Amino acid sequence: MVIIMRPEATLENIVEVTRVIESAGLQAKIMEGAQQKIVGVIGDKTKLVSVAIDALPGVESSVAISKSYKLASREFHPQSTIIEVGGVKIGGNEPAIMAGPCAVESREQLFAAAEIVKEGGAQFLRGGAYKPRTSPYSFQGLEVEGLKILAEARERTGLKIITEVTTVEGIAPVAEYSDILQIGARNMQNFGLLKEVGKCGKPVMLKRGLAATIDEWLNAAEYIMNDNPDVILCERGIRTYETYTRNTLDLSAVAAVKHLSHLPIIVDPSHGTGKWRMIKPMAFAAIAAGADGLMMEIHPNPAKALSDGSQSLTREHYLDLMNGVKKLSKFMQEENLNPIVID
Amino acid sequence: MVIIMRPEATLENIVEVTRVIESAGLQAKIMEGAQQKIVGVIGDKTKLVSVAIDALPGVESSVAISKSYKLASREFHPQSTIIEVGGVKIGGNEPAIMAGPCAVESREQLFAAAEIVKEGGAQFLRGGAYKPRTSPYSFQGLEVEGLKILAEARERTGLKIITEVTTVEGIAPVAEYSDILQIGARNMQNFGLLKEVGKCGKPVMLKRGLAATIDEWLNAAEYIMNDNPDVILCERGIRTYETYTRNTLDLSAVAAVKHLSHLPIIVDPSHGTGKWRMIKPMAFAAIAAGADGLMMEIHPNPAKALSDGSQSLTREHYLDLMNGVKKLSKFMQEENLNPIVID
Amino acid sequence: MVIIMRPEATLENIVEVTRVIESAGLQAKIMEGAQQKIVGVIGDKTKLVSVAIDALPGVESSVAISKSYKLASREFHPQSTIIEVGGVKIGGNEPAIMAGPCAVESREQLFAAAEIVKEGGAQFLRGGAYKPRTSPYSFQGLEVEGLKILAEARERTGLKIITEVTTVEGIAPVAEYSDILQIGARNMQNFGLLKEVGKCGKPVMLKRGLAATIDEWLNAAEYIMNDNPDVILCERGIRTYETYTRNTLDLSAVAAVKHLSHLPIIVDPSHGTGKWRMIKPMAFAAIAAGADGLMMEIHPNPAKALSDGSQSLTREHYLDLMNGVKKLSKFMQEENLNPIVID
Amino acid sequence: MVIIMRPEATLENIVEVTRVIESAGLQAKIMEGAQQKIVGVIGDKTKLVSVAIDALPGVESSVAISKSYKLASREFHPQSTIIEVGGVKIGGNEPAIMAGPCAVESREQLFAAAEIVKEGGAQFLRGGAYKPRTSPYSFQGLEVEGLKILAEARERTGLKIITEVTTVEGIAPVAEYSDILQIGARNMQNFGLLKEVGKCGKPVMLKRGLAATIDEWLNAAEYIMNDNPDVILCERGIRTYETYTRNTLDLSAVAAVKHLSHLPIIVDPSHGTGKWRMIKPMAFAAIAAGADGLMMEIHPNPAKALSDGSQSLTREHYLDLMNGVKKLSKFMQEENLNPIVID
Repeated sequence: MVIIMRPEATLENIVEVTRVIESAGLQAKIMEGAQQKIVGVIGDKTKLVSVAIDALPGVESSVAISKSYKLASREFHPQSTIIEVGGVKIGGNEPAIMAGPCAVESREQLFAAAEIVKEGGAQFLRGGAYKPRTSPYSFQGLEVEGLKILAEARERTGLKIITEVTTVEGIAPVAEYSDILQIGARNMQNFGLLKEVGKCGKPVMLKRGLAATIDEWLNAAEYIMNDNPDVILCERGIRTYETYTRNTLDLSAVAAVKHLSHLPIIVDPSHGTGKWRMIKPMAFAAIAAGADGLMMEIHPNPAKALSDGSQSLTREHYLDLMNGVKKLSKFMQEENLNPIVID
Repeated sequence: MVIIMRPEATLENIVEVTRVIESAGLQAKIMEGAQQKIVGVIGDKTKLVSVAIDALPGVESSVAISKSYKLASREFHPQSTIIEVGGVKIGGNEPAIMAGPCAVESREQLFAAAEIVKEGGAQFLRGGAYKPRTSPYSFQGLEVEGLKILAEARERTGLKIITEVTTVEGIAPVAEYSDILQIGARNMQNFGLLKEVGKCGKPVMLKRGLAATIDEWLNAAEYIMNDNPDVILCERGIRTYETYTRNTLDLSAVAAVKHLSHLPIIVDPSHGTGKWRMIKPMAFAAIAAGADGLMMEIHPNPAKALSDGSQSLTREHYLDLMNGVKKLSKFMQEENLNPIVID
Repeated sequence: MVIIMRPEATLENIVEVTRVIESAGLQAKIMEGAQQKIVGVIGDKTKLVSVAIDALPGVESSVAISKSYKLASREFHPQSTIIEVGGVKIGGNEPAIMAGPCAVESREQLFAAAEIVKEGGAQFLRGGAYKPRTSPYSFQGLEVEGLKILAEARERTGLKIITEVTTVEGIAPVAEYSDILQIGARNMQNFGLLKEVGKCGKPVMLKRGLAATIDEWLNAAEYIMNDNPDVILCERGIRTYETYTRNTLDLSAVAAVKHLSHLPIIVDPSHGTGKWRMIKPMAFAAIAAGADGLMMEIHPNPAKALSDGSQSLTREHYLDLMNGVKKLSKFMQEENLNPIVID
Repeated sequence: MVIIMRPEATLENIVEVTRVIESAGLQAKIMEGAQQKIVGVIGDKTKLVSVAIDALPGVESSVAISKSYKLASREFHPQSTIIEVGGVKIGGNEPAIMAGPCAVESREQLFAAAEIVKEGGAQFLRGGAYKPRTSPYSFQGLEVEGLKILAEARERTGLKIITEVTTVEGIAPVAEYSDILQIGARNMQNFGLLKEVGKCGKPVMLKRGLAATIDEWLNAAEYIMNDNPDVILCERGIRTYETYTRNTLDLSAVAAVKHLSHLPIIVDPSHGTGKWRMIKPMAFAAIAAGADGLMMEIHPNPAKALSDGSQSLTREHYLDLMNGVKKLSKFMQEENLNPIVID
């Protein structure tokens, strides 16, 4: 932390600041220039949280300069993490593809979707059984019934299952039927849920919050990692002023996460754009940027989808996209085109 | 909903769109102009959620034009709601003031704070027993111990208590000790929590999410109102690109909520700005804009606060602020200076 | 500036960083802790701009901690500035009110508007002769003809004139007919225009850019102040994700500007909200927050306005608003309710 | 345009709305449902700008549904535009690469940079002679001297030149020495400059404004296209709440522009991210998303750059990036991996 003093700060003010820092077991270094006086704070950053320096007389502002997460940080874990789910590696050489409908609507719909997902070559079937919806009058999901349908689809196709958990009570049933538990964007800072989901014993995919900074996202991962190292991050678009797209897909988050953390990162161009026409270009872009995989919405009949139909791919579009993604990924590896600069 | 067709849309495309609309029990009206064809949809808006029009051939985009909340809407409840909490009215003529430390840190700290809160004339004591914190290494609150200290402070001062609940399991204890349950910004779309908190039998204050639109906020209130009409809204700043302030306090939300909804609205200038120097001007502004009250952070010794010290008021600043707020509010009523234009 | 080194930075890296800093005539101080090494930079901040520290080996990032503006800064000019325009003080005790139509449309329209403006007690008539419009097909203003109509209205009513200048060529004619030259939000960083407008010899009102930080805004003022100390700032809403309002009016900017700068600040609730219903509550709020005045759109017949009709006040609404603003302002002075905390 | 009436709107209100619409030469269609009444407006959209419907009694709000630009629109020009600059095609099969330092600092610096640019295979040399800088105390460019150095570098290397013009007076000299004139992000809505630059007779590259919507950006292009069809768009990142990156590079803008417009689009990952480590992944991503080219900052010695050093590539990093970009682009064409879905 660096503390910027007000120009008129007195010597007494500065002494008081250093006293508060030192009484927290930290070290203060004073730097005095012609136009500014600043105080640097050195030491174990976890001690800093209880010091409210900005409220001291003579202090203009303070700037935090160290990260508050450790387990998620590449500094403390230089090697990239690979998470294995029933034989499929996430964070390895091949992209992990998760596809399926926004919501599980019926056995027929999910099985039809699963056939398409399988045909295209994805390894994971997605589909919401518990749907967090803005309006209480929107379709909220089939709940446990939906989980059972997902498990049945796994039996039929061999696809692994990823589905969202929205409440602490939902963790046990979701963990029973699913291979990966997903924490949605709206729950990224539902800390009670994060703490509990870490104990479920299965990998967790943590979507970035609608307005979460990368720093907050990695701190949220830290909550889960306290009990469970197998966390996958998922960039799904952030909220900006632009209204043409549903969200603004922040692909630079891929490079940022690879630099700051060792965790694998997946990109969701369906929620990230909200428009089916944009899924292919953004899926290609995500792979080229170094993402470890993709999550996408497909639907056997998008116009009849109970939710998010406008951002779902048809079978034809999905197969075309997967053909491109596989070629692109293979080419980049063969040619050793590594987009990521870690150090 | 209004559906904008692509310029090259065929007659067949338009017929298909109307077919889908009508098969959902809704009515379609076609409008054809020189440069555009649009289809209007009329009927019960709750039926619209299962129609994914944008995915149909020939459709460029669609625009929702009706609100998806009812219970929170002024259309369905023209009279402004007044919520009474132990004899104090929220939404009435006098502003409801909620003040206290960010977190309950100890009996001594809370009792000292409560004395100051009382002295200034606020009716509610705030203080977090469960703290949702970005980093797992930050102080997380005293939990039930903190609730008991709050209840003790009520005994000593007669102040009503408002404190945050962050998990479903926390609802029962918080409802036992607190007069109002607060849902924090990070949990505004924690729908599982919203559904359960509505059943607690006590008023609920719902803070606006960091990146929530006013529409989403009122929809979140709708989740609670299904079981509980006593919802108070709280504007606490939204996330923008500006970094000088912690958040951008959106005071226009007061006027928007008064126009769209019958619910009372409180403003939190402490979180809304993140700087103690800005609390007084924004508190005055909130009152002048027609807010039903204020929530503020004060601390007997801000520089030693375990959290949010830099946005906490000292006793001296708080008493000065309260003096102004009371005068301003009284003057506006005596002079009949009503800022709100409902119709 | 504070430079944060990467954890694996070598001693050689740190030596190179200090070498670059010192060769720019600045001083480097190294702070080394258990988990981080940082280098502080001290000296004349204008020298810092040519040093690209982040590109040196071993550097993680750097944080600027000093302001880059001087003339606009309260540090260098502690006394609040009062600007006098033909006997009217901006920044003094009484709020300066600027009202009128978005655009000058005709003599009849402007004269009708001016009568209303005068009747309500504003001191300034606003009205655009040059309109910067998103679409080239929208009404672009009457240009010099409009300026002459404004000057005529001044003759008839005694109101001072404020109008926008959008190009360097427009400065001379606007300065001839107008009492204050306005730089609009879209031109806040049109540095060529800023440099020239400073030389016009009349006060300049600088609107905040749609996505400008307060720091960038004060830097933009600095461009003008090089030649002209009489700069008035105007907060007019910033662009956020919220779509209910046209912009999000950032009233905390009033307190921020008062703290950081000595310049007067005006608030424009018409552009700031885009909805006529919100102008009164936000005008009251601006006055209560300590703004030095208001800029508002009124129109003798809003529904026929050639631009921005939906955010224009009718005569009746304007007179009601002005009645409240005057009472509120007078009361706050009589009671010495000063919202601003400068130090 | 669609007009949403208030629930309590009277028949008289609706009749008045239709009267206003029809008196503007437009057609009104009324749609009445159980819970809402809406009025659709049909006709030439350029007539709509002078109707301020929202201010009429009984109107809740209105929604624009048609685009206000024509020349830039794919609807009116279905074929993608290819712009030829001295034999190099922008918008064709091969990506157009523009590289060079942020600012022209000296002959030595620019010539050294130009050699590297040439070596990597870019066709255009970039370098600012006029620099729009937030602070008046930052380096503002060598102006005409810089233009001459750029022209000299063209002589030596055969590279085409692109450089920014910031004022109307600067258009003539920039057009004399440069092959493409660039309008920077801060001037995207400097409409006076846009109108004049269209008359310069050379292609213009229009960067997206820091907070511009795609709609506003295409409208800005429309200003130039009135005189000049050769407009190239450049996505360079938008301003969001995220502070880790300098801006958030919005790659979905590539797909959006390809859908809405026929103009070529270039991506600038240097300004878009502000971090040299992120340029390679985002350059790869841009090509994979279907961008027509890239603009990048390189510097022979980034740590000594007078501006933007931290986002500049060294020779080594640039050559590595270009190797990848060329391979990727060639592969996508050979395999016919077209990311863009126009219809």
